[in-house]
Amino acid sequence: MRLPDSFYSTVRARLGDALDVRGLDGFLATTSADVAFLSGFFYIATERPVYLWMPREGDPLLVIPRLDEEYAAQQGVTIETVSYFEFPGVVTAEQTLGAALASRRPKQIGVSAGLSIGAYRALSRALGGSTLVTTDAVARLRLRKFPEEIPFHEAAARICDEMLGAGRELIADALRRGTALPREDEIARHVIGYGTDRMYADYDLVVYTTKLAGGLVYAGPNSALPHGLPTRRRIRPGDTLILSLGAAVASRFVESERTFVVGEPTAEQQRYYEADREAQEVGTQAMRAGRTCAEVNKTCLDVLRGHGLGDFIRHRQGHGIGLQNHEAPWVEDGDDTVLEPGMLLSSEPGVYVPGHAGYRISDTVLVEENGPRRLTGYPRDLASNIIEEVR
Amino acid sequence: MRLPDSFYSTVRARLGDALDVRGLDGFLATTSADVAFLSGFFYIATERPVYLWMPREGDPLLVIPRLDEEYAAQQGVTIETVSYFEFPGVVTAEQTLGAALASRRPKQIGVSAGLSIGAYRALSRALGGSTLVTTDAVARLRLRKFPEEIPFHEAAARICDEMLGAGRELIADALRRGTALPREDEIARHVIGYGTDRMYADYDLVVYTTKLAGGLVYAGPNSALPHGLPTRRRIRPGDTLILSLGAAVASRFVESERTFVVGEPTAEQQRYYEADREAQEVGTQAMRAGRTCAEVNKTCLDVLRGHGLGDFIRHRQGHGIGLQNHEAPWVEDGDDTVLEPGMLLSSEPGVYVPGHAGYRISDTVLVEENGPRRLTGYPRDLASNIIEEVR
Repeated sequence: MRLPDSFYSTVRARLGDALDVRGLDGFLATTSADVAFLSGFFYIATERPVYLWMPREGDPLLVIPRLDEEYAAQQGVTIETVSYFEFPGVVTAEQTLGAALASRRPKQIGVSAGLSIGAYRALSRALGGSTLVTTDAVARLRLRKFPEEIPFHEAAARICDEMLGAGRELIADALRRGTALPREDEIARHVIGYGTDRMYADYDLVVYTTKLAGGLVYAGPNSALPHGLPTRRRIRPGDTLILSLGAAVASRFVESERTFVVGEPTAEQQRYYEADREAQEVGTQAMRAGRTCAEVNKTCLDVLRGHGLGDFIRHRQGHGIGLQNHEAPWVEDGDDTVLEPGMLLSSEPGVYVPGHAGYRISDTVLVEENGPRRLTGYPRDLASNIIEEVR
Repeated sequence: MRLPDSFYSTVRARLGDALDVRGLDGFLATTSADVAFLSGFFYIATERPVYLWMPREGDPLLVIPRLDEEYAAQQGVTIETVSYFEFPGVVTAEQTLGAALASRRPKQIGVSAGLSIGAYRALSRALGGSTLVTTDAVARLRLRKFPEEIPFHEAAARICDEMLGAGRELIADALRRGTALPREDEIARHVIGYGTDRMYADYDLVVYTTKLAGGLVYAGPNSALPHGLPTRRRIRPGDTLILSLGAAVASRFVESERTFVVGEPTAEQQRYYEADREAQEVGTQAMRAGRTCAEVNKTCLDVLRGHGLGDFIRHRQGHGIGLQNHEAPWVEDGDDTVLEPGMLLSSEPGVYVPGHAGYRISDTVLVEENGPRRLTGYPRDLASNIIEEVR
């Protein structure tokens, strides 16, 4: 799970240009996603700060807790590294960084607007003489995926599609055997375990910043709550069922979500399913370079409104996806970002009918020069997603 | 998984007092832990902001995305709630909050120092006329657990101890059957699945802010990296094995971590194990009201240093635990917090011998008037934690 060195050298060159334009002497990365993006060091965020100093000129520097030294070495991180012992520390992470940068005396240091007020104050004290300036330099670099990142998203997409298949098969198998249908929580555990196993089978050194594989599973009336957790409810014949799954290889995320019907769909189920499928198809085809996120979102959700389902919309069409499972840009009315080749987006309109069920189909879509390309490919037509009862 | 109403009314009364002292008109909670603590609304943090306004006088107000309205109702949240449609939104979360508070005109609003610079700016713009002031009012309220919270931590402790037993049994069972020993990743999946299943079996409506159950599993040389991820390495006779597990009921966390030896321990394994067990015992007994975190940490780690193992220390004795699996206070040299009854701490000194193995024993310990009380109770003596080979 390691990106080629060429990726990191390209990213650093592009970051240098962005810092030049902004008149910054360097960027101080403070989040696990930014640090992994710029350095290839993957860690799970805790209260122990990790700081990556990326100067416009000269060598980068990584500040980590002592606890992580061997772990960084195991990952093949070659950036100069200094460690502080612990959090909060007699000598803090910020003071350790300040001492290491003392001879370099950067004047203007870019930081992300996601930095907390507390960390901003601690850094400002420890980096006396330097000014911390919020900048979108790295956020903008992450908007368009680099060619070296795409195979990792593609690998995650294959696994995520297989997770959908594993969930479907768990139910189909119970129907064939005539045994009790699984519960929502059992299906969730099964598919997440399946995805995790696949990662470990395929990669020697598994790394991530938040998770390898995750998922929500909800059926029947529960599926009408887009953010509910899986429950102990057992799947029933006639249920609408959403498998909302994600996976990440080297923390490059995808999501793949499908709606299934257990047994022959009713006219009501067909109507909602087909409307959502159509909105997802139209919305996905609209994901083209030159259009704004807001336009694409409207194009997509207008399909649902056109079917008289406006009252059942609970969320936007989608969001950017990359080193975080949700990141900019946002495929929503309030985001005027113009789509460009290399952007990776979820396309996931949903229909939520209180008391009945929810319907959502999500693919991870790469904006290419010639148009959108789905990285996830699980079948989307209703016929393919009926889990048949055995009669 | 719901705390009694008496808990929330007590917390609000105590918060009111803290705001009075600080001259604040209210507190604006901006993190999932603070919101869950003050309101009983549990959600998983995403880019969609949730804001809970807790005025010194008058009624609280919850601002959530439209997506979560039914979910909040399902959880029985009775606080007045307004929703914004989506993130980033044509009307943002911050503007929605600003409109709702316009008639109340609070002057001084307390926020946590964990708030991001970006959110601080958006809130300041939307709440024109109000001043946002960082405060530790809620952080301090969370330092000492309330009596109503303890049963939830105790319930999590029982499950976490059982997870340890389930992991041990997976290996013991393979030894008995003479089948291949499980891999680290298989054990991790097994124990996390076990803990999750128990939660679902015991509670009607499962809620959390980050996770229900989690764990790291590492054996042999891998266990010398305290932050490594489980690998595909298969357990071997002779291995030292760390099961580092956590669980949360209503997001009230505990951790329970044990070191096992597969087969008869060598003299080297006995030495490291016994030193760590002794440090954990001495350090746990030191967790008494009136002592500082720094003193307790030193007392604990001095045991390891006394055994000549100072070079193998990689982290502090422990940390606070509550609605987050790591939270203040920090049982570390840099934290002079004086322990008080009601504080809940991990006690988890570790010994990490590069190339050989790691040893860590962790309990979740409640500071009571009479002294420390372990909520987790899995056996700690070496004899109990030998997983025997069948001969």
